[in-house]
Amino acid sequence: MSESKTVTLAQAAAFLRGAEDVCILAHASPDGDTLGSSHALCLALRALGKRAVVSCSDPIPQRFAFLTVPAGPAFTSQTVVSTDVADPKLLGAPNEALKDRVALCIDHHPSNTFYAARTLLCPTASSACEIIADVLDELRVEITPDIADRIYTGLATDTGCFRFGNTEAKTLRLAARLLEAGARTAQINKWMFDTVSRARLAAEQLVLQALEYHADGRVALVAITRAMREQTGVEEADVEGFASLTAQVEGVLVGITIREKDDGSFKLSLRTNEGMDASAICAHFGGGGHKAAAGCRMERPLPKVKQAILQAVNEALTTYERDHRPQ
Amino acid sequence: MSESKTVTLAQAAAFLRGAEDVCILAHASPDGDTLGSSHALCLALRALGKRAVVSCSDPIPQRFAFLTVPAGPAFTSQTVVSTDVADPKLLGAPNEALKDRVALCIDHHPSNTFYAARTLLCPTASSACEIIADVLDELRVEITPDIADRIYTGLATDTGCFRFGNTEAKTLRLAARLLEAGARTAQINKWMFDTVSRARLAAEQLVLQALEYHADGRVALVAITRAMREQTGVEEADVEGFASLTAQVEGVLVGITIREKDDGSFKLSLRTNEGMDASAICAHFGGGGHKAAAGCRMERPLPKVKQAILQAVNEALTTYERDHRPQ
Repeated sequence: MSESKTVTLAQAAAFLRGAEDVCILAHASPDGDTLGSSHALCLALRALGKRAVVSCSDPIPQRFAFLTVPAGPAFTSQTVVSTDVADPKLLGAPNEALKDRVALCIDHHPSNTFYAARTLLCPTASSACEIIADVLDELRVEITPDIADRIYTGLATDTGCFRFGNTEAKTLRLAARLLEAGARTAQINKWMFDTVSRARLAAEQLVLQALEYHADGRVALVAITRAMREQTGVEEADVEGFASLTAQVEGVLVGITIREKDDGSFKLSLRTNEGMDASAICAHFGGGGHKAAAGCRMERPLPKVKQAILQAVNEALTTYERDHRPQ
Repeated sequence: MSESKTVTLAQAAAFLRGAEDVCILAHASPDGDTLGSSHALCLALRALGKRAVVSCSDPIPQRFAFLTVPAGPAFTSQTVVSTDVADPKLLGAPNEALKDRVALCIDHHPSNTFYAARTLLCPTASSACEIIADVLDELRVEITPDIADRIYTGLATDTGCFRFGNTEAKTLRLAARLLEAGARTAQINKWMFDTVSRARLAAEQLVLQALEYHADGRVALVAITRAMREQTGVEEADVEGFASLTAQVEGVLVGITIREKDDGSFKLSLRTNEGMDASAICAHFGGGGHKAAAGCRMERPLPKVKQAILQAVNEALTTYERDHRPQ
């Protein structure tokens, strides 16, 4: 395989203009951005008269089914492209076998490993879909309502519907343009953000039942054991999405989520507000992460786990409040 | 009082340019839009060298405290303006006493009662803040970072952070402009959308505990009694915000929320998906509303309330599915 190189928008577009019979790879455990960007590009290449298809190692979840496009007659792919895939490992089996054939990768993750022959990387873009919009403009492909739906979905899901800090003025202006191009924005928002599964609600109930406050409400803690999961039929993966909840409670400086793994050990996730250092607290237990979000593991009975983490958090709180006390 | 008249943007701006010593009224139970629009206008009038102040009958909730501005030296107001106030009753005591003195009302509610001497009404605007931005442009007042924060807050809160159907391309482009003008969009989004009160979490837990499914998961029902609220310390008002939850569950066509009032009667809220008519179901019990959201009251024991509404819903489901069965 020849050496990987980064390409400009114009070079990526020129490459695509010359490509035939394109297979576009989405990452496994597909989300709105990888499916939105791959299918938008697929429709654009077809609009240019080419054969194109999207491939994902995993089945497409029902909530993203509206992003798919008819497969069309079968063909042997000549060109392999990936969108929103930072690392070939994320292609999953069976598509990981195609990793050395990826001729162009379009991505926004700073962690991209440059596994493709050509990489169009825009780390400041909110989403791969935001880059795809630029690629389509460069290719002079019209943003049809079908393409607008797909680009909008990636834009909205990767920014938490324009809530997160990766939302730039360019992101919002592109959303405006997609709405005018016919994207069903309100309907897509309802599907993406106002629809919850019964499994998720059951997990939410479990988390809320387990929620306890410490240190005058400055610390919130949730501990989910295997027994609790088994009693309620909640999967471990369902609980994972709630690590941020604890630190969203008004007045809470440190949120702690403790999950018992199937092997009986405990995984701790810390989230902090107002500049408290979660990573430093987790370092006491051999863990790490970022300032506002960190984690560690412990192998001891749950009461000891709680005692240990609460003691470390209380010490950190004392230091933090001494340093931040008004003079 | 002279007859009320609607005014154009240019007329509203001309009126404000000639106004002195302005008191701007927000509505009672203040939200992000009434506080954002009133304080943005207040800062704009001050930038024009005028004295201006905002008045609200109710205390400003802590989460909106960042929208307030220093009161400045006291003055007797010559001109009274209201923003986002559709009806003088919404001013609340004591400000309702000023209702006949409102010289200009700036509002986006189609239900506006034209109580002011002049009304600038844009029913297609997402929020009063969206109109205020146009007014400031007409007045040629620069959108400073402080003003941008306030306009952005109303825009974001009234659109559910650009999720709801009232989000237009103009709304998104204005958000882009405010971000560039220095609005702290990510921080404001965190305060508005990623911070929850302990009271709300307690109410959420109560609702999830009470959630039951009927008709093979096509109906979700929550019934909250006085006794349940008293046991958990949850206020009736805290439960009100959850009426839409039932219909957000995957696969649910009809969501029913039943709340026992303090007088022992029951208030029912129905939410429907996929074109089922909530209003027609509620009409059986003397209620009404819209197709996707309606309500009614019942005075009978809770088991009878549940039986009655589930029977009516099941009949509506049967009719709906007969009419929508694939041929």
